[in-house]
Amino acid sequence: MNASLDCYPCFFIQTLKTTRMVTSDEKKILQILKEVSAALSTIPFNVTPAEIGRAVYSMISRLTGVEDPYRKVKESCIHQALSLYPKMKRLIESSEDRLMTAIRLSIAGNVMDFGTGSSFDLTRELETILSQDFAISHSREFLKALKNARTVLYIADNAGETVFDRLLVEEITQPVIYAVREKPIINDATREDALLSGLDRVSEIMSSGCDAPGNILKFCSDEFLSAYNSADLIISKGQGNYEALSDEEKPVFFLLKTKCKVVALDLEVEEGSIILADARQLKRE
Amino acid sequence: MNASLDCYPCFFIQTLKTTRMVTSDEKKILQILKEVSAALSTIPFNVTPAEIGRAVYSMISRLTGVEDPYRKVKESCIHQALSLYPKMKRLIESSEDRLMTAIRLSIAGNVMDFGTGSSFDLTRELETILSQDFAISHSREFLKALKNARTVLYIADNAGETVFDRLLVEEITQPVIYAVREKPIINDATREDALLSGLDRVSEIMSSGCDAPGNILKFCSDEFLSAYNSADLIISKGQGNYEALSDEEKPVFFLLKTKCKVVALDLEVEEGSIILADARQLKRE
Repeated sequence: MNASLDCYPCFFIQTLKTTRMVTSDEKKILQILKEVSAALSTIPFNVTPAEIGRAVYSMISRLTGVEDPYRKVKESCIHQALSLYPKMKRLIESSEDRLMTAIRLSIAGNVMDFGTGSSFDLTRELETILSQDFAISHSREFLKALKNARTVLYIADNAGETVFDRLLVEEITQPVIYAVREKPIINDATREDALLSGLDRVSEIMSSGCDAPGNILKFCSDEFLSAYNSADLIISKGQGNYEALSDEEKPVFFLLKTKCKVVALDLEVEEGSIILADARQLKRE
Repeated sequence: MNASLDCYPCFFIQTLKTTRMVTSDEKKILQILKEVSAALSTIPFNVTPAEIGRAVYSMISRLTGVEDPYRKVKESCIHQALSLYPKMKRLIESSEDRLMTAIRLSIAGNVMDFGTGSSFDLTRELETILSQDFAISHSREFLKALKNARTVLYIADNAGETVFDRLLVEEITQPVIYAVREKPIINDATREDALLSGLDRVSEIMSSGCDAPGNILKFCSDEFLSAYNSADLIISKGQGNYEALSDEEKPVFFLLKTKCKVVALDLEVEEGSIILADARQLKRE
């Protein structure tokens, strides 16, 4: 999906939020806002939001000199999620439909704002998503694809969410390749984050080669593309990966909560909806 | 007060909102966002938000070819406010403290978003403000200044709010000059709006000469500055005028509700607070 006009102000909100995480020098922050402003005045907008985000966050890193502004936030997210792991594991083990509970938990992991959320909010969010109706549910297609799959490719989204992904990976009996970003971008999971989350115990961790906040195929490595093209089932987590892969004619299933109106509008659902969507079904509907 | 870094994304939100009011041509809107982006990449930021807003809205008018994008919204606001006038008048007449009730109503007029608000919301907002505690109240200073004043200068803010201003002007026994913007800017009141609201029956309507969304003195006419410098009491309505006049050492009283965090922070109050503040007291505190 292409960027929307509503993404335009949002890139400045994101620039401000991220630069404030690494500096309190207001002159420096203004300078960065102005440079982003100059860049966005000429950038093509008929690309995915993730592609523009890649350019914006790359500028922020270059101008602040901080390659990974979200390092501490990401580590904190992973530790908080790990502390919840045993409870979540028991929840799955005691549920009537283990796989669907694990899918719901992995979506819950996608919405957690570990940077600011308290544990109370976390508990409440988990409870909500465990009982919330799916706005789009292609669960029948998903179960069928999973049943017939020899290999599963799982494209990660955020650090912390990785621990919730692990719970879902553990419910899948086939070999799973867990694809992460090549370099730090926002709070997206890298190999380091996947390792901290214990994904190496249950899957093969692979870099996608991509450094955008969404798995844009033209930026991916040949190794990843080979895995992508041969996978029988691809699980794509979160909005950024949806932005990058929404036009694909592949066995891609999007698991996400719609967290902004641009993605919600593209999926024709309300903001705050939870989604288990088959890319090919979406194109047919 | 100077613009804050938080104003930066907000100018793009405002550009998007306003351009969408006059065109649905997405390419045109993107072009305007990009031109605003280029302009903001070089504009000095150590000025008031109102001064930057003046530049941004002037670009929007030039690029859309629509001088007054808010014309219809403003007329609708005034008509809705006029329909409430009799009820508000009775409320003042039956209240124990007519002047303070009129002040509260004029602040309520400042918060009404007539463009989107339903009459139910309007009634609720009025009820809230009639009983809400002032976060800053220099009412004693205001009453003293009013008692001793020979002339009162009342600097208007939005169209529609003008009708609520009229209720307050009617409680003032001294001659009142009601100052409006020279040209349309956002939904700020012009002479035409003041006339539609019946201000000519109770005051002398004067253009400030200013075409910014705040009464920036360097853009005002000599006629206005003469009235400003000789006024014994100046009532300044709304955030834009506060931005422009907050550093003044004059008998200026700000009547407003804080509608954004930038102004709230400058006044050291919460967003959503109501304020009756003496400019000179603010400087001392």
